[in-house]
Amino acid sequence: MHILITGAAGMIGRKLTTALVQAGQLRGKPIDNMTLVDVVPPVLPDGIAGAALAADLSDPAAAPALIQTRPDVIFHLAAIVSGEAEADFAKGYAVNLYGTLGLCDAIAAETDYCPRFVFTSSIAVFGAPLPDVIPDDQPTLPLTSYGTQKAMGELLVNDLSRRGLMDGVSLRLPTICVRPGKPNAAASGFYSSILREPLVGQEAVLPVPETTRHWFASPRAAVGFLLHAAEIDLKPLGQNRALSLPGVDATVADEIAALEAIAGPKATALIRRAPDATIARIVGGWPQAFDPARARALGFEAEPDMEAILRAHIEDELDGRIPVAED
Amino acid sequence: MHILITGAAGMIGRKLTTALVQAGQLRGKPIDNMTLVDVVPPVLPDGIAGAALAADLSDPAAAPALIQTRPDVIFHLAAIVSGEAEADFAKGYAVNLYGTLGLCDAIAAETDYCPRFVFTSSIAVFGAPLPDVIPDDQPTLPLTSYGTQKAMGELLVNDLSRRGLMDGVSLRLPTICVRPGKPNAAASGFYSSILREPLVGQEAVLPVPETTRHWFASPRAAVGFLLHAAEIDLKPLGQNRALSLPGVDATVADEIAALEAIAGPKATALIRRAPDATIARIVGGWPQAFDPARARALGFEAEPDMEAILRAHIEDELDGRIPVAED
Repeated sequence: MHILITGAAGMIGRKLTTALVQAGQLRGKPIDNMTLVDVVPPVLPDGIAGAALAADLSDPAAAPALIQTRPDVIFHLAAIVSGEAEADFAKGYAVNLYGTLGLCDAIAAETDYCPRFVFTSSIAVFGAPLPDVIPDDQPTLPLTSYGTQKAMGELLVNDLSRRGLMDGVSLRLPTICVRPGKPNAAASGFYSSILREPLVGQEAVLPVPETTRHWFASPRAAVGFLLHAAEIDLKPLGQNRALSLPGVDATVADEIAALEAIAGPKATALIRRAPDATIARIVGGWPQAFDPARARALGFEAEPDMEAILRAHIEDELDGRIPVAED
Repeated sequence: MHILITGAAGMIGRKLTTALVQAGQLRGKPIDNMTLVDVVPPVLPDGIAGAALAADLSDPAAAPALIQTRPDVIFHLAAIVSGEAEADFAKGYAVNLYGTLGLCDAIAAETDYCPRFVFTSSIAVFGAPLPDVIPDDQPTLPLTSYGTQKAMGELLVNDLSRRGLMDGVSLRLPTICVRPGKPNAAASGFYSSILREPLVGQEAVLPVPETTRHWFASPRAAVGFLLHAAEIDLKPLGQNRALSLPGVDATVADEIAALEAIAGPKATALIRRAPDATIARIVGGWPQAFDPARARALGFEAEPDMEAILRAHIEDELDGRIPVAED
């Protein structure tokens, strides 16, 4: 079992790599080769045969070199995040569209090759006007360049899967929360930082009203989605290989209530309101909640509520400790 | 007024060029420059300043050279047809996707430039399962590579228009009928040939059952759509610049009845049934009829019925004559 992960140095990529090494197998076969690629060199885990490569997928030579090694399973996570893709038109298209196209073209160019291809799409393929709860047959109408690039990737995955060139699936990940580490350029960053920073006694900025409602899953759930997508029979999806995924439907007020329940008012007092019209406009066009019936029928599962998301973060990132409550 | 037409040597491109020359103006300004481009050199009409160029839009150098002349209105018609795009994966993507991407990238690279961009999409962006009458909010789900490439082009036109890089619109043309001239590689070719060939006393092959139902407009109506799309205010479309267009909802039996009404049984006797499972499978996944309310509200108009389509063909292509009835 040879596994290729693009964007392997990113947060989800690293957690996915760790989870695969811990499992030791995928699709019933021992993992004997991993190719990890990112713009910065990823770290190949000890004792794993394979390669950790620094490569820019927007370089036309990058994808053929990766695909000619014919990995059995490809996790295509590499992407420029939404805020940066909106700020830099050329860079967003280069990585998020041409990078995906390069992989697809290289896969199509191989003969007798049909890898499992797990593509991380996004709920940003949907844009206002939207129903409060989005059904599986909601038309895609992205309102950002990032969402546009992901929607185009979904179309590619559908077409190559239909043609038998890959056995692909596009996962519309909920917004990942709590995202560990430093903030990145994603417009959605505050959803995590208003939980993550107060838990360790640091101030966090809230740029949108507390009534803002959104759709969340933990990094742990996201890795679970990716592994599940690599394992299952995808034929029940028919021609539409794009899946909206289960998540937690929560407002910013729900996030703050979960933080207070778990870490107390000392934590929530660290959230500073600083309205930002640009961020409010971007996230205001995003989906609020989903009815992901197709994904649920296939066995995809997320956390039940925001407190469970917060507890997963405390277990996975803080060794079970709540520093703000210990001072 | 400088107009660029890609695919200008094609059937619609030539008729559009003629119509523009006859009108002499577009958007209230005299047409003083036309750039016509195709893989074979188009013909620049007498007395028109401009250029007729042979260029392959899948060549990365082609689009920048065209766009640096900063045309005011761009009609992007160039495409590999459905049958050929399905048979040749690389060629279809090269022209239908990378060609459109090249134009978009070149437009985005210009500063202070926002051309009117009229993109010919297709009803092939929709695929089964479909309702009998397709509403304007039907999700795109292409079942061919051609439809995939057109759906991706629609996403690009939406995103560049949203960013103010173009003022674009994607027209989902009905199947063009009666297409004049020789058959091409489109899987839909029989819809025209069962009318066109019998009218001039030649046999035509019908590969599908007479109950097969589809959505049609004449070449004359298609040129009318393109000109109208270049003229009107597109702001009422909001973020979704893709339009399903009016057409004639007709079965193959309706086509044959119109032929019999206008040209008599001698014409219809020239239709030979030769079932073809591949063609039946492709067109069986295509749309049957639309409720194109948004396009109608913007003033787009097609023929009322199949007889009107047939009469337009006889007037425009046969000088008003019906050869099979003259023998």
